Amino acid sequence: MPKRRKLSRGVAVVGGGLTKLGLFKDRNCKDFFAEAFAEMVGSVDKGFDPKEIDAVYIGNFSNDFFVNQAHWGPIIADLLGVVPKPVTRTEGACASSALAFREGVLAIASGLYDIVLVGGFEQMSKRTTEEVAEGLAMAASPYEVAAGYTFPGVFGAMATAYFAKYGATREDLFNVTIKSHNNAPLNPKAQFPMTIRDFMNARIDRCRKKGEPVPEWKDEKDFLRDPGANPPVAWPMHLFDCCPISDGASCLLLVAEEIARNFTDDPIYVAGLGQGSGYSLHAKKDLTTYEATKYAAKEAYEMSGLTPKDIQFSEVHDCFSIAEIVHMEDLGFFKPGEAYKAVAEGLSRLDGPMPINTSGGLKTKGHPVGATGVAQLYEVWVQLRGKAGRRQVPKPNLRIGAAHNLGGTGGTCTFTILERR
Amino acid sequence: MPKRRKLSRGVAVVGGGLTKLGLFKDRNCKDFFAEAFAEMVGSVDKGFDPKEIDAVYIGNFSNDFFVNQAHWGPIIADLLGVVPKPVTRTEGACASSALAFREGVLAIASGLYDIVLVGGFEQMSKRTTEEVAEGLAMAASPYEVAAGYTFPGVFGAMATAYFAKYGATREDLFNVTIKSHNNAPLNPKAQFPMTIRDFMNARIDRCRKKGEPVPEWKDEKDFLRDPGANPPVAWPMHLFDCCPISDGASCLLLVAEEIARNFTDDPIYVAGLGQGSGYSLHAKKDLTTYEATKYAAKEAYEMSGLTPKDIQFSEVHDCFSIAEIVHMEDLGFFKPGEAYKAVAEGLSRLDGPMPINTSGGLKTKGHPVGATGVAQLYEVWVQLRGKAGRRQVPKPNLRIGAAHNLGGTGGTCTFTILERR
Repeated sequence: MPKRRKLSRGVAVVGGGLTKLGLFKDRNCKDFFAEAFAEMVGSVDKGFDPKEIDAVYIGNFSNDFFVNQAHWGPIIADLLGVVPKPVTRTEGACASSALAFREGVLAIASGLYDIVLVGGFEQMSKRTTEEVAEGLAMAASPYEVAAGYTFPGVFGAMATAYFAKYGATREDLFNVTIKSHNNAPLNPKAQFPMTIRDFMNARIDRCRKKGEPVPEWKDEKDFLRDPGANPPVAWPMHLFDCCPISDGASCLLLVAEEIARNFTDDPIYVAGLGQGSGYSLHAKKDLTTYEATKYAAKEAYEMSGLTPKDIQFSEVHDCFSIAEIVHMEDLGFFKPGEAYKAVAEGLSRLDGPMPINTSGGLKTKGHPVGATGVAQLYEVWVQLRGKAGRRQVPKPNLRIGAAHNLGGTGGTCTFTILERR
Repeated sequence: MPKRRKLSRGVAVVGGGLTKLGLFKDRNCKDFFAEAFAEMVGSVDKGFDPKEIDAVYIGNFSNDFFVNQAHWGPIIADLLGVVPKPVTRTEGACASSALAFREGVLAIASGLYDIVLVGGFEQMSKRTTEEVAEGLAMAASPYEVAAGYTFPGVFGAMATAYFAKYGATREDLFNVTIKSHNNAPLNPKAQFPMTIRDFMNARIDRCRKKGEPVPEWKDEKDFLRDPGANPPVAWPMHLFDCCPISDGASCLLLVAEEIARNFTDDPIYVAGLGQGSGYSLHAKKDLTTYEATKYAAKEAYEMSGLTPKDIQFSEVHDCFSIAEIVHMEDLGFFKPGEAYKAVAEGLSRLDGPMPINTSGGLKTKGHPVGATGVAQLYEVWVQLRGKAGRRQVPKPNLRIGAAHNLGGTGGTCTFTILERR
């Protein structure tokens, strides 16, 4: 049976908003979404009336667990003043809002709507760290949890398998962390806008103030090697391999291609959409690859007619340092077993040939799980519009960027390609 | 701006499955979904290979709360053997799987996929009744919960407002309950396949066996009037006004219109889709109408080119007896203030001019919240195919049926019109 991978109707991104990410215990999800929404409204070059929104899709992992409130559709509808327009929640763990983006695109492509808001949010700070670990475990496979795995444990096992297969070591993971933290201070929304050297200096200052012996690290890697500075979580995942707990919200305004120029002279188009599912750890044939990511990439490349070589920069889901490396290979940016070398050579730096996580990634920008998918696409949209300021990808003719979002331990993946024409 | 309410591509239902509903503490959601899926596979007249499924959408309210497991996409993908195909969860409280149906339709209409499975599931029996009440409260508005409302309380307030506005009484609600329970024994999937007279007889038998005084009710209404038999929950909502707590799963197979006859010579087409959002109780101007239902109905009628008069029968969300009455008005089947009289006149009976809840409705069939939306559409599909057995709507040329699904206390509503050509 022939597959139709083309959308019946084109879709463009014409506005976007993202909160400053961090831990904001005294605020709530409505505050976050309102902040992202306000930025989005202001970002639409030719202006628009929010009452024109036909429908809304929101991604949220588990406000059920984190804030004891489910069914956010009508709460968001009321907040935005769009009642009785439809609002639909999607959930795919950490990929929840990438699914919202996708359903928003499909709703327009289907012919049903012209103007759709998509977004996501999560507030994790109302719970203790132990409770957050318990809540996030609901996103892992029940088999993984039954076997005693936590998220760092699963990704630790994947890292170990990768090391065994390709000869990489923990030192190679340091390069991912250092690279992401180099981008962080350039992103005003980042939860940790600090380089690794900033962390080193902060630590040294603290020791001096306390009159404690001042550590002598000869460089960033030396700092990351020090278990006092970078303690193990689940070997080989140490603290600086893991993304933080975060609060925040994100949104993007999608419109049908034929009306996009009513909103802006610089619309960014959806070129490719992909989504896949993956096995639980126990059922995977190979821990060094994600079948969900490969499938999502295949779908998106097929729809767009593009290949990995055409992607000029990408956000890649780096909940853990090893995830960024494996995904760079699964997305076709580098051959299997080659991505860690590419990172070592600086190829994924902001000024390299294939910038990865220009936003700083989940590791430094933050990871409010339900907001992340759309937050990644916000970064791609900002970059393609040339509005990323100090972290702007320094390439002439920036035209094609992508975002990869992972849910759970690999159960749900999306890959989305955006294009400036 | 002109709205495009037509889908770019037609969609047909070609298979369906629904578990027996009830409380099954020793089974789990995978068991339920597998049971519904197996029936669906067997129901496709010309057969099909489940590997042909392009994508899956599943509705679930809060397995996070009920069974401590979120992120069911990959679990269902693995269960069905469709990894790495995409599986997306939608949530809109009790309307969760109607949203899955809708997204499945849009995914096909968008041109992206040809064959999409949609379904839903919920297991509520692992929790105590008190815990279920707590979990369901997460689907109400936070303002309602803060004001001390539970679900029966909200619908009790709506009933009181309806009584005050239109002169209806509790006696009128009895007619809804009696009508639904008359359909129940005709549905082999129903959780309570009993008429009210069956309940009366069961009670009389029990009294006789225990040697207690045998109650003398002169008819069903007399039984429902007796607070010993039908105790108050939140006045005027008594026990027999409220749907039960249930477990179960449902699914439907959707395909692009142009390939529908590869699967069956009797496809049932999606004629109209509608979805709306609604205000929390405190912000509603009128408690006797649901703005979300009206909006959903408007969308579905516009898309289909049909009017309420064209709908030959309908499933209507009857989480509480008053909800069925108000929705019959909001959907345009009867004028405001007239539905309770219509029910009294028997117009909504299985053999009446406008059969409502031929399945027995949520009240008797059961309400596993995440499964309900698709379970309602399953009933419409079965009826339109003429395969409803003893509960078959006795109309010649049955061609158009509909299903209305409500989430929360009115926050999310869908209305879907199916058509046999």
